[in-house]
Amino acid sequence: MSPQVGIIMGSDSDLNIMQAAADVLKSFGISFELTVVSAHRTPMRMVKYAAAAKERGLKVIIAGAGGAAHLPGMVASITPLPVIGVPIKSSNSIDGWDSVLSILQMPNGIPVATVALNAAKNAGILAASIIGAFDADLGEKVTAYKQQLESEVLHKVDKLKSEGWSNSFD
Amino acid sequence: MSPQVGIIMGSDSDLNIMQAAADVLKSFGISFELTVVSAHRTPMRMVKYAAAAKERGLKVIIAGAGGAAHLPGMVASITPLPVIGVPIKSSNSIDGWDSVLSILQMPNGIPVATVALNAAKNAGILAASIIGAFDADLGEKVTAYKQQLESEVLHKVDKLKSEGWSNSFD
Amino acid sequence: MSPQVGIIMGSDSDLNIMQAAADVLKSFGISFELTVVSAHRTPMRMVKYAAAAKERGLKVIIAGAGGAAHLPGMVASITPLPVIGVPIKSSNSIDGWDSVLSILQMPNGIPVATVALNAAKNAGILAASIIGAFDADLGEKVTAYKQQLESEVLHKVDKLKSEGWSNSFD
Amino acid sequence: MSPQVGIIMGSDSDLNIMQAAADVLKSFGISFELTVVSAHRTPMRMVKYAAAAKERGLKVIIAGAGGAAHLPGMVASITPLPVIGVPIKSSNSIDGWDSVLSILQMPNGIPVATVALNAAKNAGILAASIIGAFDADLGEKVTAYKQQLESEVLHKVDKLKSEGWSNSFD
Amino acid sequence: MSPQVGIIMGSDSDLNIMQAAADVLKSFGISFELTVVSAHRTPMRMVKYAAAAKERGLKVIIAGAGGAAHLPGMVASITPLPVIGVPIKSSNSIDGWDSVLSILQMPNGIPVATVALNAAKNAGILAASIIGAFDADLGEKVTAYKQQLESEVLHKVDKLKSEGWSNSFD
Amino acid sequence: MSPQVGIIMGSDSDLNIMQAAADVLKSFGISFELTVVSAHRTPMRMVKYAAAAKERGLKVIIAGAGGAAHLPGMVASITPLPVIGVPIKSSNSIDGWDSVLSILQMPNGIPVATVALNAAKNAGILAASIIGAFDADLGEKVTAYKQQLESEVLHKVDKLKSEGWSNSFD
Amino acid sequence: MSPQVGIIMGSDSDLNIMQAAADVLKSFGISFELTVVSAHRTPMRMVKYAAAAKERGLKVIIAGAGGAAHLPGMVASITPLPVIGVPIKSSNSIDGWDSVLSILQMPNGIPVATVALNAAKNAGILAASIIGAFDADLGEKVTAYKQQLESEVLHKVDKLKSEGWSNSFD
Amino acid sequence: MSPQVGIIMGSDSDLNIMQAAADVLKSFGISFELTVVSAHRTPMRMVKYAAAAKERGLKVIIAGAGGAAHLPGMVASITPLPVIGVPIKSSNSIDGWDSVLSILQMPNGIPVATVALNAAKNAGILAASIIGAFDADLGEKVTAYKQQLESEVLHKVDKLKSEGWSNSFD
Repeated sequence: MSPQVGIIMGSDSDLNIMQAAADVLKSFGISFELTVVSAHRTPMRMVKYAAAAKERGLKVIIAGAGGAAHLPGMVASITPLPVIGVPIKSSNSIDGWDSVLSILQMPNGIPVATVALNAAKNAGILAASIIGAFDADLGEKVTAYKQQLESEVLHKVDKLKSEGWSNSFD
Repeated sequence: MSPQVGIIMGSDSDLNIMQAAADVLKSFGISFELTVVSAHRTPMRMVKYAAAAKERGLKVIIAGAGGAAHLPGMVASITPLPVIGVPIKSSNSIDGWDSVLSILQMPNGIPVATVALNAAKNAGILAASIIGAFDADLGEKVTAYKQQLESEVLHKVDKLKSEGWSNSFD
Repeated sequence: MSPQVGIIMGSDSDLNIMQAAADVLKSFGISFELTVVSAHRTPMRMVKYAAAAKERGLKVIIAGAGGAAHLPGMVASITPLPVIGVPIKSSNSIDGWDSVLSILQMPNGIPVATVALNAAKNAGILAASIIGAFDADLGEKVTAYKQQLESEVLHKVDKLKSEGWSNSFD
Repeated sequence: MSPQVGIIMGSDSDLNIMQAAADVLKSFGISFELTVVSAHRTPMRMVKYAAAAKERGLKVIIAGAGGAAHLPGMVASITPLPVIGVPIKSSNSIDGWDSVLSILQMPNGIPVATVALNAAKNAGILAASIIGAFDADLGEKVTAYKQQLESEVLHKVDKLKSEGWSNSFD
Repeated sequence: MSPQVGIIMGSDSDLNIMQAAADVLKSFGISFELTVVSAHRTPMRMVKYAAAAKERGLKVIIAGAGGAAHLPGMVASITPLPVIGVPIKSSNSIDGWDSVLSILQMPNGIPVATVALNAAKNAGILAASIIGAFDADLGEKVTAYKQQLESEVLHKVDKLKSEGWSNSFD
Repeated sequence: MSPQVGIIMGSDSDLNIMQAAADVLKSFGISFELTVVSAHRTPMRMVKYAAAAKERGLKVIIAGAGGAAHLPGMVASITPLPVIGVPIKSSNSIDGWDSVLSILQMPNGIPVATVALNAAKNAGILAASIIGAFDADLGEKVTAYKQQLESEVLHKVDKLKSEGWSNSFD
Repeated sequence: MSPQVGIIMGSDSDLNIMQAAADVLKSFGISFELTVVSAHRTPMRMVKYAAAAKERGLKVIIAGAGGAAHLPGMVASITPLPVIGVPIKSSNSIDGWDSVLSILQMPNGIPVATVALNAAKNAGILAASIIGAFDADLGEKVTAYKQQLESEVLHKVDKLKSEGWSNSFD
Repeated sequence: MSPQVGIIMGSDSDLNIMQAAADVLKSFGISFELTVVSAHRTPMRMVKYAAAAKERGLKVIIAGAGGAAHLPGMVASITPLPVIGVPIKSSNSIDGWDSVLSILQMPNGIPVATVALNAAKNAGILAASIIGAFDADLGEKVTAYKQQLESEVLHKVDKLKSEGWSNSFD
């Protein structure tokens, strides 16, 4: 099966952040590919990747970059697919502000679906939500995922009580 | 036909910004609904709207809010659908920073697809991209839209030349 | 005796910050409860907690959260009680700015009494001030607490002098 | 009846912002006084006002200031009462950031209950919430106020529908 | 003569800012071209313009853009020529911060010579400095330009004195 | 009498801000001179002005500049006199942040006494405080000035009372 | 001899920063005192210290504080002496911004001579410049200090050359 | 051969950052000199260095500085050569913002070609681009350098595939 999601990043040094997107997609059973595409170092590869993405069967592209982060926006300028941007607090970033602003503040006509700083995991969940809106089985998995988040919190509620924190609500 | 996109906002004073999302969806022929849902003033309405969204047939929710903007994130915590957040530079906002950060910086598990400050038009285009990834006709409209953006720029190129700005490239 | 103050936080990972509020309340002899309530992972628990708070006898709610921090504001939208918000510099926060702005910048109608970044101790003292305004015994304890702060500084004054720092004022 | 709330501000030029606090308190039927107390221009008046506040019967102090805004924090250092700080975006302020940070970021021991930039109205509502937690009649008024906020939004929902914005939810 | 400097911008709405670069180059007698090249709306035009720039005889490229401003950096990723970036405070920019950071903070390997916000005039002067370092006649014009700046200030010194501002230095 | 204070600024366009310093010095009866000295456009004039300042009898230099504001720091690097820096929110400044930071954040060894953004009046008062610490007559004028500030506030207190704002404190 | 400079700080935890001011004054042979004065924890001590400063013979006050840093401004509101403010990046500060803004952005009438973040050494040098403007011997020491800074750099120039960094200028 | 590029910095403590510029120039075979020139500690050395630079045969000056960083702008005010500014996140900098703004935000007439925070390597590459625009051999080396960047990324693409990350694009 051809992949439904393409995860790309400007450098393999971003893999420690972006792997969380791959892990989430795997846990949802969504097929994906992952590779390096640099807007600044391989501009023609970037153009070709973006231009071919839709006909290759991808449904969503997740692009991570840091500093003056042009990859998500440039890919979004070429493909009609939804592009999720992950601002990365890379070593050359000013506390992440450059990464966030250069991905988020796209001009009219070329949106990038931006998630929080370093939030590759959320990029994967957002891709699952998007595909799940049109795929009933996956949609139920997303619903189940949110219920699981709730269960985990409720376990923490019990844990705190068992550790002696009184609470007259539960 | 039941709407595919729900456009919600915290107050009708946000309509002057959010109408751009409606206009774009209309131009793409995507059915939508638009109403006021306030996280802070109508929390139960917000919960019910988010909880019912998927079974009512919505595919994407666009939520706009300003200041300490909780609507997009709270809706995303309840629905499995993708939620697009529009940070609005409302009158009580500190230059838009509060709106951007309180929508973008969601915790792991609950992504919001954030677009630029006041970029309701881009929210509409992103919704079209998402639906168009699964609907061939709409997908082609999105591709055509991007080509039209290119044409508009090329007309501006000609206009500048006709106004006397020399250019040995074109 | 039912608790007068409810301390809630989005995750048990916030307990290392929020415990300072509990410690202060204990030192003032104010009854409290402490539990996990997540706006994003347990939205219905959050609604129920906030809706029941007043009739359960609480006088003040202290809510801590980080990043896109919606818990204090959402609880304040449901309960008529005063809500003290503690912005937490969590691991996913951009230097605390998102936490501060998404708690502080609430729209008209729904205030949150915001304290400094990570200042759970001050949240506890503020709760004591609030209750102490209506409870003469506690009010005197708050006055005594401020006098003790003064005494501690005066001891430091003496300590510096004994370490050889001359001072012709004291 | 002696006033329950003291509204103070550094200059009468802040009255156009701070009057909203007075208006809210009036609408709740809460007695208050309003005057000018400047930390920088009348430091001894400030000390005396803060030192006498509790024995004069005040329950809450609302203090508004802009720029390097020391009034709320200095008053809080002297009185055991809860102090609500209103950061004002005065003409000499850098976009309000100085006002917010110099009120919010108080050291441990001396909290100020900070509200949003220019949010004097919310300061009034917070004072009502605080007093209403100990005064059953006022508590019900606060609850009614929040319900009225909800009603106003629901009227806006109807207004949008009557203006032609379709909506399959309501 | 083929142009030595190429002035490009993302939209003709940026011309009111960028014209200052053209004016300066004209005053120095440096040949230039000026056109619209949008990284986001005409990505292939941008690639071709950048790829052909050196062999077409250009020595310097001046690129202006606002918001998530990718044009200067993307052109710099393709051409070996020096690229001067002008951050524009466009209508969709957050006070210019996005424009500045997305042009300035380029990764290692791909510099952009960034000038101040909206400083298209300085971009023109910088281009003149660069060419003037290798062209003796132009180099002298640049030196003369700096002397003229000095003369203008000295005239202001005299003007202030003639207006009655005493000064024992001159 | 030779002037005691030198007021300098980078351009006569800064005079509308800097005149407030002159007005204050005049009201205190302190002799001063005022002229244009630009670090960037007249670097040698700046060097000479700073080098001669002390032997010409000046006691304090007040220097105003905006944007990348180098005048106060460069003058401080040459003269042993105290230099007061006034960050000006000039038309090319990013909300004043560049002006403030490039004056305030001087390296060890070369302090600039920085006042608030656009606060030329405070620069004049600070110069008066400095000279007044060594000149008994002027020192009393400074004390009287602070008392006058107090009187003005007390008049505002009365004005508010006469306008109907009740106050049980005064 | 009574001290000429008073160094005060909000807590003895600030001594590791503020000691640099004492060291500089000692090296210039300027008499000083150093003690703890907290605006928030010992407001009356602060009032008394500031009110007595001039008649006790002080010429300059150096005040260091962090977070919502009110000490320098409050002292300046009471004494006619020049007050040098040192913003400290204390543990509860948001990257130092709160410290800087709450000291720098004083209202008209009450200046604080603010130095860079944590720059206690520069506060000491500024105090020496101020006193040296009226004391010929000290003034020459300040001039000598600036020459020594130059000498140290020239030694570094030689050191780099001896380490093999070629340089055709020297 | 006299050097083509002058690398200067305010202190030898900046050498650990600035050496990257030297390394790049060496790899391109561009002659350079490197020394310490401090705007604040050796203002006359700075003036002489800048004034002599062009006639000494330099083509480009690279200047690095941190905090209130005046060296690049002051040198640019004196020499007609292009000046590349490297903002350094020195120990006394507020997260690099002061360094960036005091170099970037130069007034009209005096541009500095600013690169990213700490990006001395990019300063060296920019100098090579500038000289390479007028030197055919060097120009080809710059082109080759950009191709090498591409090759390095393509090797990373292969590396990721060999590590098991599937990818249907390559």
